[in-house]
Amino acid sequence: MVPEQEAYEYVRDAFVSAGVDEGVAKDTARGMWFASIRGVDSHGIRLLPHYIEEVQGGRINPSPEFEFEQMAGAIGRLNADHAFGHAAGKRAMEHAIEMADEVGAGHVVVANSSHCGSMAYFGLDAAEEDMIGYASTHSTSNTKTPNSTRPFFGNNPICVTAPMADEEPFCFDAAITPITFNEVKQRRDSGQQLPPSAAADENGEETLDPHEATQLLPIGDYKGFGLAMVGDIMNGLLSGMPVGRDISSMFGDPMDEHRRLGHYFSAVQVDAFVDVEEFKQDLQELAEDIREEPRKDSDTPVHVPGDPEKEAKAERIEEGIPVPKHTLERFDDIAEEFDLEPLVEEY
Amino acid sequence: MVPEQEAYEYVRDAFVSAGVDEGVAKDTARGMWFASIRGVDSHGIRLLPHYIEEVQGGRINPSPEFEFEQMAGAIGRLNADHAFGHAAGKRAMEHAIEMADEVGAGHVVVANSSHCGSMAYFGLDAAEEDMIGYASTHSTSNTKTPNSTRPFFGNNPICVTAPMADEEPFCFDAAITPITFNEVKQRRDSGQQLPPSAAADENGEETLDPHEATQLLPIGDYKGFGLAMVGDIMNGLLSGMPVGRDISSMFGDPMDEHRRLGHYFSAVQVDAFVDVEEFKQDLQELAEDIREEPRKDSDTPVHVPGDPEKEAKAERIEEGIPVPKHTLERFDDIAEEFDLEPLVEEY
Repeated sequence: MVPEQEAYEYVRDAFVSAGVDEGVAKDTARGMWFASIRGVDSHGIRLLPHYIEEVQGGRINPSPEFEFEQMAGAIGRLNADHAFGHAAGKRAMEHAIEMADEVGAGHVVVANSSHCGSMAYFGLDAAEEDMIGYASTHSTSNTKTPNSTRPFFGNNPICVTAPMADEEPFCFDAAITPITFNEVKQRRDSGQQLPPSAAADENGEETLDPHEATQLLPIGDYKGFGLAMVGDIMNGLLSGMPVGRDISSMFGDPMDEHRRLGHYFSAVQVDAFVDVEEFKQDLQELAEDIREEPRKDSDTPVHVPGDPEKEAKAERIEEGIPVPKHTLERFDDIAEEFDLEPLVEEY
Repeated sequence: MVPEQEAYEYVRDAFVSAGVDEGVAKDTARGMWFASIRGVDSHGIRLLPHYIEEVQGGRINPSPEFEFEQMAGAIGRLNADHAFGHAAGKRAMEHAIEMADEVGAGHVVVANSSHCGSMAYFGLDAAEEDMIGYASTHSTSNTKTPNSTRPFFGNNPICVTAPMADEEPFCFDAAITPITFNEVKQRRDSGQQLPPSAAADENGEETLDPHEATQLLPIGDYKGFGLAMVGDIMNGLLSGMPVGRDISSMFGDPMDEHRRLGHYFSAVQVDAFVDVEEFKQDLQELAEDIREEPRKDSDTPVHVPGDPEKEAKAERIEEGIPVPKHTLERFDDIAEEFDLEPLVEEY
């Protein structure tokens, strides 16, 4: 376990040492910390070595010039100039919120971006301004198309947020597959089977064997596939970026090629529809009603979307962020390369 | 099989005879025809006897005064005055499109509405105007909450549409459960088992026996549940209507009580983001690429969302709409009551 504040500072300093502009380094490190502290380790600080490679390889522009163009009262586009997606997304959502302040809604696509981590990092900014937030991205083709033998779309995540009266905002943030490919790999290492309806082999047959699994299955078969296609339409076609199998791969493709990812963000004012304080109170009561529903397994809570992340956050602020040994060793190499204080376990 | 045009006219005339205002009768009959002709029989003309009962019982206001209020450049609210949801939704989407013409996006909630049929009926109006359409409604509590023993939310459908170059628009329209309760009932009648991960019994245990099934399971477990909650937030809390288990039941509750359903519609201009003709061409090519993906079962096409509905429409315009015998008999009773020409099978 590493202390959460030190983890953030270490990641930020590593980026700055690698030549990343300070504002971008801060936003990206904060996004990785944000995922780690909420238990979403797949998008957390463990990605630092990969991201440093992306900067050093030229895939990521360390000194981007963000260009925002507003095309209508509620519509804008941010050219991210091949920056880290985390920094691009923060700025795009800011513009969406500004337009929503003016006309009630703001929609912003991001072009020429890269991996942006956890969608909640952007969606929650809208909810903090008493708006309904929406954040999405497309991603590498890894999800089986119904009745095809292979993937076409990625497992394109969707995030929707809304403000609540007495706690951090409601936050639904999910990819359109039951599990991620990271989980497939973890189960390979630990010798565990896959859950049903989660993955398929290279012939498109469902498999429970993580070593056979080459692609993910969408939730609800053609329904999850449809949501993935909506994702490519909004994140890819509306931003002018590639779609489907033309989207580059996070790990497989060369580090000197830009990824050209697209994202889509929107913010909608709650107070334009109903009194926002009443809305927040109503949503609070709705969440509490759900948590009090009769339990099938009495020892396990009935959760509202976002509850596991809120629980992880409370725990990790106290106890730190778990980082696997091999990741910490790579962190040490980075510390040595850039002459930084290494990040050390304190719990 | 009944001829599609006669089916529409018969339903419209039955509504007018039951005292429904002509404009509302037309929009509602057209919505039912729209569902039937696209193969979505659950929301089609078979509902006529039920809808007539709703008018006669007082649940539906046959002469509603729709009131639209625009609260911001991109935000509005339609009070449906307890009209048929079909007629309310058409008007709400029209307002969303008008606002999107002005500022690029329009978001409209509908309050005091009722069952509105197929969401595609509204979503496609936006796509016909070269916009991205979004249409949703909440519905009766019937979907099991993860780790609870009972339903909390409905299987709240979501529809997203987009214009295409050479065919009717892209249309994703799906509830957040793998099957509907109508399908559970159909499988009871036909003695068929349920598919896996589709339904649960009264203790919250998954069941394949349609006679044991009392509730539906959401797609992707907590992911579908989260989408359902987003639905209640947008359709219910933002419109000031009830949510969760407080939403009235389409069939169980008294016919003299208004349902107070809420819907949410939005339209977003494509041309504000990218050249709309290029977008339509790109989406056309994307769809064609998907249809040409290698097939697991070589006799079955790889479908893009909306393909089954487009196929059904082509077929039913030629061959008519299938109506079960017991439904046609109830149609005959209605014809007798209102002194109408009965709807007869012609194929």
